[in-house]
Amino acid sequence: MAKQQKSRFSIGVDYGTNSVRAVVVDAADGSEVGAAVFDYPSGTAGVPLDPKNPHLARQNPADYIEGFYQSVGGAVRAARRHKGFAPEAVAGIGIDTTGSTPLPVDRQGRPLALRPEFRRNPAAHAWLWKDHTSHAEAAEITDLARRRGEPYLAKCGGVYSSEWFWSKLLHCKRTAPRVFEAAYSWVELADFVPAFVTGRTDPDTLPRGICAAGHKAMYHESWGGLPSADFLARLDPDLPRVREHYAVPAQTSDKPAGRLTAEVAARVGLPEGVPVAIGAFDAHMGAVGAGIKPGRLVKIIGTSTCDMLVAPGENQLPDVPGLCGIVPGSIIPGMYGLEAGQSAVGDIFHWFVQHLAPAVFTRDADPHRRLSREAAKLRPGESGLLALDWNNGNRTILVDPLLTGLIVGQTLHTTAAEVYRALIEATAFGALRIINRFEEYGLKVDEVVNCGGIAEKNPLVMQIYADVCNRPMKISRSPQTCALGAAVFGAVVGGLYPDVGRAQRRMTGVKAEVFRPNKAAAQVYAELYRLYCQLHDAFGLRDGDGTLYSVMKTLIAIRDRVR
Amino acid sequence: MAKQQKSRFSIGVDYGTNSVRAVVVDAADGSEVGAAVFDYPSGTAGVPLDPKNPHLARQNPADYIEGFYQSVGGAVRAARRHKGFAPEAVAGIGIDTTGSTPLPVDRQGRPLALRPEFRRNPAAHAWLWKDHTSHAEAAEITDLARRRGEPYLAKCGGVYSSEWFWSKLLHCKRTAPRVFEAAYSWVELADFVPAFVTGRTDPDTLPRGICAAGHKAMYHESWGGLPSADFLARLDPDLPRVREHYAVPAQTSDKPAGRLTAEVAARVGLPEGVPVAIGAFDAHMGAVGAGIKPGRLVKIIGTSTCDMLVAPGENQLPDVPGLCGIVPGSIIPGMYGLEAGQSAVGDIFHWFVQHLAPAVFTRDADPHRRLSREAAKLRPGESGLLALDWNNGNRTILVDPLLTGLIVGQTLHTTAAEVYRALIEATAFGALRIINRFEEYGLKVDEVVNCGGIAEKNPLVMQIYADVCNRPMKISRSPQTCALGAAVFGAVVGGLYPDVGRAQRRMTGVKAEVFRPNKAAAQVYAELYRLYCQLHDAFGLRDGDGTLYSVMKTLIAIRDRVR
Repeated sequence: MAKQQKSRFSIGVDYGTNSVRAVVVDAADGSEVGAAVFDYPSGTAGVPLDPKNPHLARQNPADYIEGFYQSVGGAVRAARRHKGFAPEAVAGIGIDTTGSTPLPVDRQGRPLALRPEFRRNPAAHAWLWKDHTSHAEAAEITDLARRRGEPYLAKCGGVYSSEWFWSKLLHCKRTAPRVFEAAYSWVELADFVPAFVTGRTDPDTLPRGICAAGHKAMYHESWGGLPSADFLARLDPDLPRVREHYAVPAQTSDKPAGRLTAEVAARVGLPEGVPVAIGAFDAHMGAVGAGIKPGRLVKIIGTSTCDMLVAPGENQLPDVPGLCGIVPGSIIPGMYGLEAGQSAVGDIFHWFVQHLAPAVFTRDADPHRRLSREAAKLRPGESGLLALDWNNGNRTILVDPLLTGLIVGQTLHTTAAEVYRALIEATAFGALRIINRFEEYGLKVDEVVNCGGIAEKNPLVMQIYADVCNRPMKISRSPQTCALGAAVFGAVVGGLYPDVGRAQRRMTGVKAEVFRPNKAAAQVYAELYRLYCQLHDAFGLRDGDGTLYSVMKTLIAIRDRVR
Repeated sequence: MAKQQKSRFSIGVDYGTNSVRAVVVDAADGSEVGAAVFDYPSGTAGVPLDPKNPHLARQNPADYIEGFYQSVGGAVRAARRHKGFAPEAVAGIGIDTTGSTPLPVDRQGRPLALRPEFRRNPAAHAWLWKDHTSHAEAAEITDLARRRGEPYLAKCGGVYSSEWFWSKLLHCKRTAPRVFEAAYSWVELADFVPAFVTGRTDPDTLPRGICAAGHKAMYHESWGGLPSADFLARLDPDLPRVREHYAVPAQTSDKPAGRLTAEVAARVGLPEGVPVAIGAFDAHMGAVGAGIKPGRLVKIIGTSTCDMLVAPGENQLPDVPGLCGIVPGSIIPGMYGLEAGQSAVGDIFHWFVQHLAPAVFTRDADPHRRLSREAAKLRPGESGLLALDWNNGNRTILVDPLLTGLIVGQTLHTTAAEVYRALIEATAFGALRIINRFEEYGLKVDEVVNCGGIAEKNPLVMQIYADVCNRPMKISRSPQTCALGAAVFGAVVGGLYPDVGRAQRRMTGVKAEVFRPNKAAAQVYAELYRLYCQLHDAFGLRDGDGTLYSVMKTLIAIRDRVR
């Protein structure tokens, strides 16, 4: 087929927890011309679980490969129905994934799990972001870095997480040494997919993205890349080997990882040689898809949230305690990428509906809608309730998973809708606490763009967020901001735009409807927020005013002992 | 009819909030030989309410009079079917009522509400114990007594309540001066009924019981009876008038108020002249019916609790801060009667079922049973939850209605049964805090006898109480301990026993089943109780360790402002 079409499309591929989605977008305005979703076939909703170990969450790398073929191939087929589209008009591909989701690979960069002898070994699979088996190792890494006075934790809130790269590798070495031994190196999923589809899987040269490296692997140029071999060896003598087979410097996603191989291209119906961008995490590319820029916080609201911010400059930014990461270029090249987050938002609302909502609400097809309708009738402060949004711990700003929920103010007349609203308000107060932390360190947050199902479907939540945060709440125009963000990078590596900012201005946007703060509501919430902070600090800070820091800790300790 | 039968029966009459119950008992062993219940016909379940004022709860005095005729008459008729019973064999009658439930009376001691001009005036009716219209006046009385350094509050926990005698009278004067003007005096329901049925209604000589006087009207012999005329005049110049028409000394219930008049006797099928004991409150006579004695706490568990204790001696007892009352002879003559209580127990469980229990529980005929069954499967500490039992404020030991509920420890997996159990445990911790307050002041509590529907029907609650309090929990044998306690006094004034103690030993008892503390559970609960006390003091004490005392207060203040 002759090339008759000027390149003007790009493809974004978004690897989620349960499925992978590919979209073909018109790079002129970001509109979607084709899309396809592939559900991972392995395990439960794509996650093989271990009934004996609720902390374990692994994924089959074969699903990722098949997922690329099916989703991209499907999206291209769908786009063919669009007037003006031709596969030859695809300029580039961007890819985002969950993370930290590292997988062990052999000398050729092939996932160990694909080998017959490791096919049934969970340690040889991808260690999904939400795998929490490595909490002891995370504490060990934090402890060692602190004792040695290393700078490594300064960019990730001062605490290394059980969800992150080195914790998982160390846990593998400790509990599945045969797998660790067989692994030549470990690769983040965000790096694996671009490497695989461009044929650049040799671990020694496989392009590594700055996003995964900086946010999860303690990579920073100021200390020469990854943590020192000496530091890693103190954790385990075999750990430096991974460092040796880890190509540096890590790169930003406006750079190509390579070009689509003939074999992969044929599978998905595209020409050989389409450039593929360096991969990054879903939240980071999602922020780009939502139009992130300095002063505009992007909240990706799902079961939990990722709160993304960028700041200009590369060298003068202070370390902001409590953040999940501060990484140059991890969101937009040339700017700091800052990631914060709330451990549970949608998960708290779902928990309430599942466990504590009475029949009058749950017999509705959508209990959230009915509860929100009742909760919307209440004025701020009217219920007398106040809650802490810590049912799943607190990510930012306390970086403490051993915290729990709290609600105060119940009377004998407190209703389910009042509790539901108090839980929404609690997540809003948690969101404001993050915004305030940014601003305490000189990073202004003038407006907020929200993405995700809750943002799109629940105007009550958005209005409460606007009133509590006393800032306009906007909603991302695209319902698939992550895939769109990936497509922005596809457009940049495809040469359709000279940089991410210019691509964003054309391809992304917000909906016309803006939730603006109501002045009277904002005043009441300002009072309630002061009380929230009192509770937050009393139960959350080791050195808080009261003596209540130990309460949640002791309850958890007793629970774990008697269970 | 010739008197062929030796006296051996007594009658107890129990005026509750919604109905009056009379029982005829065999004084030899306390067994019931006849009973009848009369539901007050006025208002909603006996309480005429004002939809515009939720604090208002009044009662029609005509219901009390008709209630005596119907319940006693019915019980006597029912007893006639019992072999060996004859009306002539009734030795005496005891009467207990709710309180403080004062009603205004005219010069003859007739309730003002019976007069045509006042029939529809709520202020002329009986002011039911749970009427809370007088909270401003209660605060005023507390404030005045404190400012003048009066001893009046020492026996009632340091705070005068809106539920009590003088608050209600003062509120009547302020808001319904015509009624107050027409009232020659005010009489507690517990005094009114014995006076009415014995024809001794002249307010100047009407026998007043020590129970109502001492617990609700600041009566104490050490300061010469009621508060001084000077003190009352400072509240309102017309208040001393009530003091003038209030016969002293107030008396214990082993003394007769008088004898049944011919007219009343004929209405109820008894002989004229049966002695009627001085009245007392339901919880006090209920404690007697449950076999109260030194070291044995009686918990009357309903929507709230009354926790009753007696202590020997009349003069050496210290004031115990936080108690509702310490009154010589108010329970057993010759001993101090001590009353404490929890503002909500059954009410909290009902609130949970009504507002927060999911369909899987509420579709059962008895959601409490299903929830208890699930909650019983949990080990102490296993849920990681801890709650404060303050949904209706805290009566003992904080004497503070402006407190609210709190629950901490929720995760994303917390279940309804776990919350339900945490609420039960919270009420148990509240019960233990009361026991500990008694013991801090030298009043030993070795065992607890529980009465009421929850105690009888919910073994989980009783076992948790035993484990938390680390003491055996016994259940009163009679399901009608208040009426039985009244019958004990009937037997004493009827001469069947020389004193209350000896009557109790024969007429009252506990069930064979005793809930004994489980050692392992008690150890876990001892740890949880320490955490409960931390929360209790942090949120409940003005001078607690933390700065959280203001949180509940401010939430209530905001709520009341925005409503």
